Amino acid sequence: MLQLNAQRLLGALDELAKVGAIDGGGCARLALTDEDKAGRDLVVGWMKALDLEVRVDAIGNVIGLRAGRENLPPVMTGSHIDTVRTGGRYDGNYGVLAGLEVVKALNEAKITTRRPIAVAFFTNEEGARFQPDMMGSLVYAGGLGLNEAYAAADKDGHSVGDELRRIGYLGPAKPGALRPHAFVELHIEQGPILDEEKVRIAVVESVQGISWTEYTVTGVSNHAGTTPMRLRRDAGYIAASVNVFARKLAWEMGGHQVATVGAVSLRPNLINVVPNRAVFTVDLRNTDEEKLKQAEARLAAHIADTARQERVEVEAKVLARFEPVIFDSGLVDRVERHAQALGFSTRRMPSGAGHDAQMMQRICPTAMIFVPSVAGLSHNVKEHTEPDDLVAGAQVLANLMLELAEE
Amino acid sequence: MLQLNAQRLLGALDELAKVGAIDGGGCARLALTDEDKAGRDLVVGWMKALDLEVRVDAIGNVIGLRAGRENLPPVMTGSHIDTVRTGGRYDGNYGVLAGLEVVKALNEAKITTRRPIAVAFFTNEEGARFQPDMMGSLVYAGGLGLNEAYAAADKDGHSVGDELRRIGYLGPAKPGALRPHAFVELHIEQGPILDEEKVRIAVVESVQGISWTEYTVTGVSNHAGTTPMRLRRDAGYIAASVNVFARKLAWEMGGHQVATVGAVSLRPNLINVVPNRAVFTVDLRNTDEEKLKQAEARLAAHIADTARQERVEVEAKVLARFEPVIFDSGLVDRVERHAQALGFSTRRMPSGAGHDAQMMQRICPTAMIFVPSVAGLSHNVKEHTEPDDLVAGAQVLANLMLELAEE
Repeated sequence: MLQLNAQRLLGALDELAKVGAIDGGGCARLALTDEDKAGRDLVVGWMKALDLEVRVDAIGNVIGLRAGRENLPPVMTGSHIDTVRTGGRYDGNYGVLAGLEVVKALNEAKITTRRPIAVAFFTNEEGARFQPDMMGSLVYAGGLGLNEAYAAADKDGHSVGDELRRIGYLGPAKPGALRPHAFVELHIEQGPILDEEKVRIAVVESVQGISWTEYTVTGVSNHAGTTPMRLRRDAGYIAASVNVFARKLAWEMGGHQVATVGAVSLRPNLINVVPNRAVFTVDLRNTDEEKLKQAEARLAAHIADTARQERVEVEAKVLARFEPVIFDSGLVDRVERHAQALGFSTRRMPSGAGHDAQMMQRICPTAMIFVPSVAGLSHNVKEHTEPDDLVAGAQVLANLMLELAEE
Repeated sequence: MLQLNAQRLLGALDELAKVGAIDGGGCARLALTDEDKAGRDLVVGWMKALDLEVRVDAIGNVIGLRAGRENLPPVMTGSHIDTVRTGGRYDGNYGVLAGLEVVKALNEAKITTRRPIAVAFFTNEEGARFQPDMMGSLVYAGGLGLNEAYAAADKDGHSVGDELRRIGYLGPAKPGALRPHAFVELHIEQGPILDEEKVRIAVVESVQGISWTEYTVTGVSNHAGTTPMRLRRDAGYIAASVNVFARKLAWEMGGHQVATVGAVSLRPNLINVVPNRAVFTVDLRNTDEEKLKQAEARLAAHIADTARQERVEVEAKVLARFEPVIFDSGLVDRVERHAQALGFSTRRMPSGAGHDAQMMQRICPTAMIFVPSVAGLSHNVKEHTEPDDLVAGAQVLANLMLELAEE
C-alpha cells in the first residue's frame, strides 16, 4: 500500500490556508483575485518541486502531469482552490493537496505507474465572483465556450478574460485536450450526514440536480393599521407562503428532495407598511430529474394560485438549472471496495452540492469520495474535518488511483 | 356658517408641500431636520400673520393662540407637519392648515369667540427619525418625560434635545400648560375604506391599540443542497411561518383585527444557504384591548411551538404597545351631527393609524374627523385627497369648533 505522510498533507493544507486567511480560521480567495493568484502560485510551485509538468489552459485550469510508463490517457484527480468570501480551509483545497500528496508518495516510493497521473485545479468552481460556478471544469468538458466564459463579469465589471490575463493564468493549453482515463475527486461532504452517522467515507453516486429561481413579486404598499386584510396585496406574504409551501413540499416528497428559501428582500421593509415588493429565491434539488420537475411544477402552481388570490404580479427568473448527474457505477463500486478494504465505514449518498467532478463525468468515468464535515458546516470559516478523516480519504484516493493507473 | 376659502386652504397646502419636496409630488420633512425647521418657520410665519400668539414649548410643540372674549380653556385643533421619508402632502399638514384656515375665516368675519381658539402642531408625530412616534403630543399629555424625550437619538446618534436646540425650537413653554376645553383633529384617513365606500366624512370613534414586536431568530447556517430537511434549523422559515400564521389569525379573528409582517432581514441572505438569522417585525392592531391581547398570545404560542420544532432560539423585543383609545362619545356624536347637517355622507370607524389626538384624549375630550385618501395610499408620494373632500372636512371642523368655542 502506498504510504502517505499525514503530517505533510496537513502541513500543506495549513500553508495554503495562510493565503487569503481571514478571521476565525477561514480563507477568502475569490476566483482570479490577487489572493487566488497567490494560492495558485504556491500550488504551482509545489507541483514543480514534485517534477510535475505544469500545463495551464486557456480558462486557467492548471494540470500537473506525472509521466507514466506508457503514453496513455492519465488517471486524473483534483478539485479547486478558489473559495467563497467566507470560505473554509478544506473545500476544494483538500482534493488538490491530497492529489499532490499521492504524487509525493509515488515519488518517494520511486513508483512509475503504467498510466500518467494528473492533479488538476479548476478555475472558479465556487461561482462566488463570476457565474456560472464550476466554470473551469464546465469549459474543460466542452459545456461552455471560451468566449462566453471570458465575458462573464463580476459586479464591478471585471471580466474573466481580463482577470485571467492580469494574474497571468490565461495559459496556452486547450481546455479538455487531456482526456482522462478516469477522474476521481476527493472532497469534504459539506453536509452533516457522515458526521451525524459517524461514517468515515461517503461513496458518492450522483450529484443532485439544481433548480434556482428568483421571484419578484409586485403588490401594493399600504398602511399596516388602516388597510383591512381583505384589501391587501402583500408581496411579502407571497414570499412567506412560498417558503412554508416549499418546506411542506420537500417533506411530502421525501427522499433526496430539498427546498430552501435562502434570500428574501422586502420593500419598503418597514414595520408598519404592507410590502409592495418582495424578491426571494427558491433552491430546489433532487437526485431524480423527474421528481425535480415535479417539485418545480408544484411550486409554480402554488405561486400562481397565491398570487391570484392576493392580486399581485409575480415574475420568475431561472438563475441556474442543472440536471442530476449519475457517476460511473463501476468506478463508484471501486471507491466503496477500496474504502472497505481499508476498514473504513462507508455509506452511499448523492452530493447535494455541485462539484467539478459532475462536469468531468461528461468526458470520462468519474467518481467522488467524501469525508465528514464536523456539524456539516461549510462555506463557513468554522468548516472543519478531523485529521484522521482527511488522511483516510486521501488513502482511499491513493489506492484507487494506483489501481486505475496500472490498468 | 363660517365661510372658508377653499382656494386659500389648497394654496397653503401647496406652499407647505414645496418645503422638502421630493420626486413624485411628496415631501420629506423628517422631524427636527433642516427641512422640518423650514416647514415650521413657514407655518409660524403664517400664524404670526394671523395675529396668533405663538407659544413654543420645551418639546418643540407650537401652539398659535387666538384670544377669546373670556379667558377660558381654549378649543384646540391641530396635528403635525413632520413627514416620513417618502411622505405625502396631506398627512398631518392638512389638519394644521385647516385649523389656520378656520382662524383666517374668523378674522375675516371679525368674530371673537367666547373661548380662545388654538391651532397646534406637535413634534415628531411620525417617529420616522426618533422613537417613540407621537412624541410631542405624548409629552404634552404627560405620558413621557422631557429628559427621556430629549435623549431619544436617531441612527446617527443625534438626540432630540440637541436637534431641537439646533433648529431653534426648544421653547420656553411647559408642555401641557394649556389644557384645552376640547381637542378635535382633522386628518386624512390613510386607509381605503372611505374611498372604497364613497363616503365623505369618517366619524372616528377610537384608535386601534398597537402591538409592535421585533423577533430575532437564531438558527444554524447550512448548505442548501447538502442539509437534509430534518436537520435544518432555518431562521428564515420561522419568519415565513409567522407571516402566514398572522394572516390566518387576522382572518379568523375578523372585526378590526389586522396583522402585518412588514420587515424581514435574513442572514446571510444567499440563495444556497439556510439562513442562520432572521429579524422580522409583527404589527398587530385591534380596537379591543382584550382581543389584541388574545392575538398577541396566539401569535406568541405559534412562535414558541415552531421555534421548538425547528430547534432555534427566538428573542422578542416589544417596540411599541399602546392600548386602544376611545374618544369622547359626546364629542364624537357632535362630529357626526355637524357632518350630516352639512349634507355629507358619514360612517363611523376606528383609526388604524396612531394620531396626536389619541394622546390629547388623556387630558381633554377629544375627537377626530377623517376625509378620504384615494386608494388608501398614505406614507407614499402618491397620497391624494380630492379638493372637495379637503374642503368638506375643514367645514365640519370649523362648524364644530365654532360651537365648542361658544360654550
